[in-house]
Amino acid sequence: MTTTAPQNPAPAPVLDLNADLGEGFGRWQLTDDDALLAAVTSANVACGFHAGDPSTMRRVCERAVERGVRIGAQVSYRDLAGFGRRAMDVPPQELADEITYQIGALRVFAQAAGADVAYVKPHGALYNRVVVDAEQAQAVVAGVLRAGGRLPVLGLPASRLHEAAARAGLPVVAEAFADRAYTARGTLVPRREPGAVVPDPDAVLARSVRLARDGAVTALTGEEVAVRARSLCVHGDTPGAAQLARRVRQALEAAGVRVEAFA
Amino acid sequence: MTTTAPQNPAPAPVLDLNADLGEGFGRWQLTDDDALLAAVTSANVACGFHAGDPSTMRRVCERAVERGVRIGAQVSYRDLAGFGRRAMDVPPQELADEITYQIGALRVFAQAAGADVAYVKPHGALYNRVVVDAEQAQAVVAGVLRAGGRLPVLGLPASRLHEAAARAGLPVVAEAFADRAYTARGTLVPRREPGAVVPDPDAVLARSVRLARDGAVTALTGEEVAVRARSLCVHGDTPGAAQLARRVRQALEAAGVRVEAFA
Amino acid sequence: MTTTAPQNPAPAPVLDLNADLGEGFGRWQLTDDDALLAAVTSANVACGFHAGDPSTMRRVCERAVERGVRIGAQVSYRDLAGFGRRAMDVPPQELADEITYQIGALRVFAQAAGADVAYVKPHGALYNRVVVDAEQAQAVVAGVLRAGGRLPVLGLPASRLHEAAARAGLPVVAEAFADRAYTARGTLVPRREPGAVVPDPDAVLARSVRLARDGAVTALTGEEVAVRARSLCVHGDTPGAAQLARRVRQALEAAGVRVEAFA
Amino acid sequence: MTTTAPQNPAPAPVLDLNADLGEGFGRWQLTDDDALLAAVTSANVACGFHAGDPSTMRRVCERAVERGVRIGAQVSYRDLAGFGRRAMDVPPQELADEITYQIGALRVFAQAAGADVAYVKPHGALYNRVVVDAEQAQAVVAGVLRAGGRLPVLGLPASRLHEAAARAGLPVVAEAFADRAYTARGTLVPRREPGAVVPDPDAVLARSVRLARDGAVTALTGEEVAVRARSLCVHGDTPGAAQLARRVRQALEAAGVRVEAFA
Repeated sequence: MTTTAPQNPAPAPVLDLNADLGEGFGRWQLTDDDALLAAVTSANVACGFHAGDPSTMRRVCERAVERGVRIGAQVSYRDLAGFGRRAMDVPPQELADEITYQIGALRVFAQAAGADVAYVKPHGALYNRVVVDAEQAQAVVAGVLRAGGRLPVLGLPASRLHEAAARAGLPVVAEAFADRAYTARGTLVPRREPGAVVPDPDAVLARSVRLARDGAVTALTGEEVAVRARSLCVHGDTPGAAQLARRVRQALEAAGVRVEAFA
Repeated sequence: MTTTAPQNPAPAPVLDLNADLGEGFGRWQLTDDDALLAAVTSANVACGFHAGDPSTMRRVCERAVERGVRIGAQVSYRDLAGFGRRAMDVPPQELADEITYQIGALRVFAQAAGADVAYVKPHGALYNRVVVDAEQAQAVVAGVLRAGGRLPVLGLPASRLHEAAARAGLPVVAEAFADRAYTARGTLVPRREPGAVVPDPDAVLARSVRLARDGAVTALTGEEVAVRARSLCVHGDTPGAAQLARRVRQALEAAGVRVEAFA
Repeated sequence: MTTTAPQNPAPAPVLDLNADLGEGFGRWQLTDDDALLAAVTSANVACGFHAGDPSTMRRVCERAVERGVRIGAQVSYRDLAGFGRRAMDVPPQELADEITYQIGALRVFAQAAGADVAYVKPHGALYNRVVVDAEQAQAVVAGVLRAGGRLPVLGLPASRLHEAAARAGLPVVAEAFADRAYTARGTLVPRREPGAVVPDPDAVLARSVRLARDGAVTALTGEEVAVRARSLCVHGDTPGAAQLARRVRQALEAAGVRVEAFA
Repeated sequence: MTTTAPQNPAPAPVLDLNADLGEGFGRWQLTDDDALLAAVTSANVACGFHAGDPSTMRRVCERAVERGVRIGAQVSYRDLAGFGRRAMDVPPQELADEITYQIGALRVFAQAAGADVAYVKPHGALYNRVVVDAEQAQAVVAGVLRAGGRLPVLGLPASRLHEAAARAGLPVVAEAFADRAYTARGTLVPRREPGAVVPDPDAVLARSVRLARDGAVTALTGEEVAVRARSLCVHGDTPGAAQLARRVRQALEAAGVRVEAFA
């Protein structure tokens, strides 16, 4: 992605856009899956543990394939009541098996739709936990390995998850967040802190373009920080999420960024 | 299956032995999976809807493969509290998707263990329902079809399930029950009626051998009834179940019956 | 119930307005509880089996008490995935205990808020089932009896539920539906049939007033039908539900109907 | 509890015996509730979040009342799959509401049986968490307070739970474990460490008598440690649990200890 020869113009930067989809459960709907599928290149599909009933999983897979959107398994703690946002001390072997189960449950719908599960991304509290918890990170990787197919693992760079995945020979895909504030060290400002979320859509667009083109973001405390990401997460479960995702995509493309799923 | 011409010896009758396995959930254990795997040729593995946590599913698949036992998806209504024994009016598309989900969740463990899901058998209330309910039978078949692999469907002959499966081109495997009483029409005496279950182990053995060799059973009301089955179900969740299964197998083999999984 | 003789004024007709509330679960919200509480006199609060997490139950109880709205237990089959809309063959004793459990779980929040559970109304598939199924109706009544307090049972007149409740000495409260079509026999047109739901808000208002003042409704097939009800159900889980509930209340009050909870 | 003046006989020491009961779920049974109820004076009844279906809760309450055994709410994280043994980061208000819900659900059965919930004891991972986690301890207390009745809280002395309960004016009841090893500081040796559980039944009996009479226990490292307890927990979910509980009770009574529920 770096240019060394001046006579040889740099390739256009490339970025994947991912969002959480299929996060309803039965009667309850949350994400505007059709609208999001029109905007993103990768769909993190809930697999039934924090959200995602079988019929929703099937529909999202079918529509994703129609639109050429990549299907990923959004794996979670088993916690419907807490939407997977409550960290759990799950013993490693149990956690690994729960991950494998979820991947298998999504895979059958992805394959029936003519595609396959193409990557894995932890959800919610598990996502945050495996940034720092080596044991659970290793368990997630063990679950992914058992599922077969050497699936890429989407997550934060410098996380325990990516370390464990790389050690196991799994591809890792670094992601960034267009609507989240960063610290001077390049980590996310925790949600409970003021300023953690970027509320202004125009700022989100500008940050997205900078992330893609310059690999940089301005930290909450003003510093310039290098943030290298192959995928950009846009949130799917907020009002106006799908519209913002579309605008992010348009802004990226207008800035010459190729919006494409990772290989 | 009986021979009348002495000069032309009949092939040895062949029978599959199946039992329900992995019917615990987390802390709760129910079936003696290891002992049952030593006796049967096909394991109906619970997939998480009426029983069956991911770790149990993994272990049962691993042990089944070690012993050369066939793995089947024991699919159920979503009813942990009722162990899948409460019939539910699930809309057809929903039911089909729930079936597909369960097959996918088991398949990933079966494949990780070096095998695959080899057949599907409905559990409990769903098993009974699809004997007579054409809509739900069709939904189960739709769910099996979507899961791919044209999986054989294990069930009662003359059931709506087998009719729907045959119409869809899926292989059907007829099963009989060694410890259940039959009516004069060749159907099972409902569990709530007196005499529905054969309590005497020796009688179970004798009936098993007759079923295999003669394709016949004595009905509760005394009539001789033809019962053709390629698989014999031995129950797994009663005390002494594994021991009885072993004795059934020994009795069959002693009587010259080949105990083998169906193709 | 109408007045024709000026010298002897009839008492104003009186009607309770009830709606389903608290039908979210964790992250998922469905009903606009605050807006509905401003319109109705009785709140059917989900108790956790088809919807209703503990925090939502607490909040709805607190707000209902603030507004002087009666709290009822909206009891259901145990079926979060199906939102209680899938009929289940639950054995009677099990069903009774599940009903008691739900009432107890809601009661603690109602009492903490300074009120109590004032009535019971079955939800969804259970509501429809106990219109015709005497065994399940009796089980619901047994569950209500065990919960103590001789709670009134809200439901359709001429239902098995009301028969069983009356036999057991429980008060019964007849309810009608302003937005549902009736047959010539005074029963509801099943939802799957065309014309089952009255789509026009103005028609709903007019029907509400007629029900209250005249105890009558025009059947889908044109006949005038007597429908006697002490409570009128307005649906809470559709877009614009709270607004329609407010308009129904205003129309009733403008027509001289006292909108009051039943005793 | 020690005697110093021979002419003035000390009152007999008194101890409550508590055990976890009703820890099955539907088809799955775990604890021999009838046998345990013959041995203990206080029954910690599972309330549906880690175990405990409504019918089991009803039966245990009925039998406990028949035998004069005190009923306590054994409250837990919402985690059937993990049997409440996986610590969860539940937000305080949510946790409080979940506790209140469980108490209410058990209370209705206790009251129907002619008694009431007499105390609260956290289960499993929640029990361990509130020893050290002040926020969750406070949340549990808030949930108990909201349930009304100023219920005593059973737990480890010197725990955050007992501190929070005492601050809130709730009675606290200190418990000890006859079959668990203690550290020199009087805390429990964590289960994962060697020697954490006392395997020898005779040793369990001797320790029980010493705890009751002398308020002392020999630590795993040999020191004498003062352990003051009003209640002694005997485990219910191990093979032979009920028999051991009976023997503990007999040994206590033979040693002149009054085995009685706390007031």
